[in-house]
Amino acid sequence: MEILLNQATFRKKWTLEQFLDATSDRGLHRVSIWRDDVKPTDVAELSQLLNRAKVQLFGYNRVGPIRYKSDADFETSLEDGERQIDIAAQLGADHILFFTGGLEPGSKDLAGFREKVSEAAKHLSAYAQGAGTVLAIEPLHPMLCGDRTCLTSLKQANDLCDNLGDGAAIVIDVHHVWWDPDLSQQIQRSGEADRIVGFHVNDWLVPTTHLLTDRGMMGDGVIELRKVWDEVSATGYSGSIEVEIFSERWWERDPDEVYDICLSRCRSIFS
Amino acid sequence: MEILLNQATFRKKWTLEQFLDATSDRGLHRVSIWRDDVKPTDVAELSQLLNRAKVQLFGYNRVGPIRYKSDADFETSLEDGERQIDIAAQLGADHILFFTGGLEPGSKDLAGFREKVSEAAKHLSAYAQGAGTVLAIEPLHPMLCGDRTCLTSLKQANDLCDNLGDGAAIVIDVHHVWWDPDLSQQIQRSGEADRIVGFHVNDWLVPTTHLLTDRGMMGDGVIELRKVWDEVSATGYSGSIEVEIFSERWWERDPDEVYDICLSRCRSIFS
Repeated sequence: MEILLNQATFRKKWTLEQFLDATSDRGLHRVSIWRDDVKPTDVAELSQLLNRAKVQLFGYNRVGPIRYKSDADFETSLEDGERQIDIAAQLGADHILFFTGGLEPGSKDLAGFREKVSEAAKHLSAYAQGAGTVLAIEPLHPMLCGDRTCLTSLKQANDLCDNLGDGAAIVIDVHHVWWDPDLSQQIQRSGEADRIVGFHVNDWLVPTTHLLTDRGMMGDGVIELRKVWDEVSATGYSGSIEVEIFSERWWERDPDEVYDICLSRCRSIFS
Repeated sequence: MEILLNQATFRKKWTLEQFLDATSDRGLHRVSIWRDDVKPTDVAELSQLLNRAKVQLFGYNRVGPIRYKSDADFETSLEDGERQIDIAAQLGADHILFFTGGLEPGSKDLAGFREKVSEAAKHLSAYAQGAGTVLAIEPLHPMLCGDRTCLTSLKQANDLCDNLGDGAAIVIDVHHVWWDPDLSQQIQRSGEADRIVGFHVNDWLVPTTHLLTDRGMMGDGVIELRKVWDEVSATGYSGSIEVEIFSERWWERDPDEVYDICLSRCRSIFS
């Protein structure tokens, strides 16, 4: 079982290059990254950085948000998504995350938004397949509905994937789905369709004080991480466990220390 | 269609007596209240206050939290619940809200907690029926899972109610369920079983900045309030629309003004 780190865990202290060096220094060879640090113009340079550090990409964040106020906006979103997929493929990413974004300002039509998102996912999933990578649907926590997503449960992600056909893929982040009474059943369903391509870990703190940036370190919260992992791996998923912690608290800490704590917590929980 | 106010909307500015007077002054005759202001010793006095103001109770908040660390704790929770149900019945409340509370400190066993909560609901629902009132199950938003609830979707509330049999009842608060892709289907299911006894309104702000106290005034957020209400009333629900806004912002405003804004917003949206 491979443990790897998502760049977002070190957002405030490290450049991408520092993160890759820290990974390499630990004898690790895979990471997930965010496009904020990857302009279309420096893909070649980034490839060189990855090669030099002997680090490969697992997840690439991201396609989206999907804008849909006008047909032209929607087309632009799809084109932007295609460009990001091309970059992910060029960098050899295992998968690229699909981020729906929120409702258009002034709109309350959640059902209509969900339809446009399904349409976008269908197009971009097929495009990703053609480009040699995978579009990964990630349900987010319902508290982010409207503002950052319209994909709010693993059941909804599975329903969406049923419509995508070949190449449909899901990333499960425990922070977003741990509360769901149907979680075990929907993990099994994802597994039976052989569509789990990523498993993100962190923890849910009680109380949680911020909707976006108060995630916990594995073991500090109330998610039964080992139980969820056992359910995911029982479906046949043999991919990586990826640590992704959005936390003002952990962003302030020494990133080398954070990296080591993430690894040791994961080894103690998942080994 | 009756519109009524929940006392929590005025938490910081009014005593219960002031709230009842403000209700009476507006020619209204029903409210929902919280037990924080109702000690077992002053039930008679409260009855007098209600009679004097010619105001009746719709919802009474609440039974719970359910404690279950030991059998003794669990028994105490049930006994406390029975006392609260007796008070609600004595005050003539239409229904009493069931609040599960959060996980026991140190526990991560969400499934085990949910089993204890089902057991408690079964006992207390039957007790409420005997006492001449109704125990109302209210699913809360998943962001409150662990800290304040383990009942996180309308589907879960319906599943629980299927097990309660006669007297099973549900209160739907838009803030807690609006994000749910299965909302329409689960409202219909609740309606077919004739178990909707309350409908709470407020709004979901984008962005929402606090997990508990940043609810919006109806119309200021992204919930399709009229659409949800149409679905609820299409099931045959003919009860009240209850305004319940937890908001630091609205708690600071002049409560008379807030009362009038709540009524006028509701009239414009739901009439």
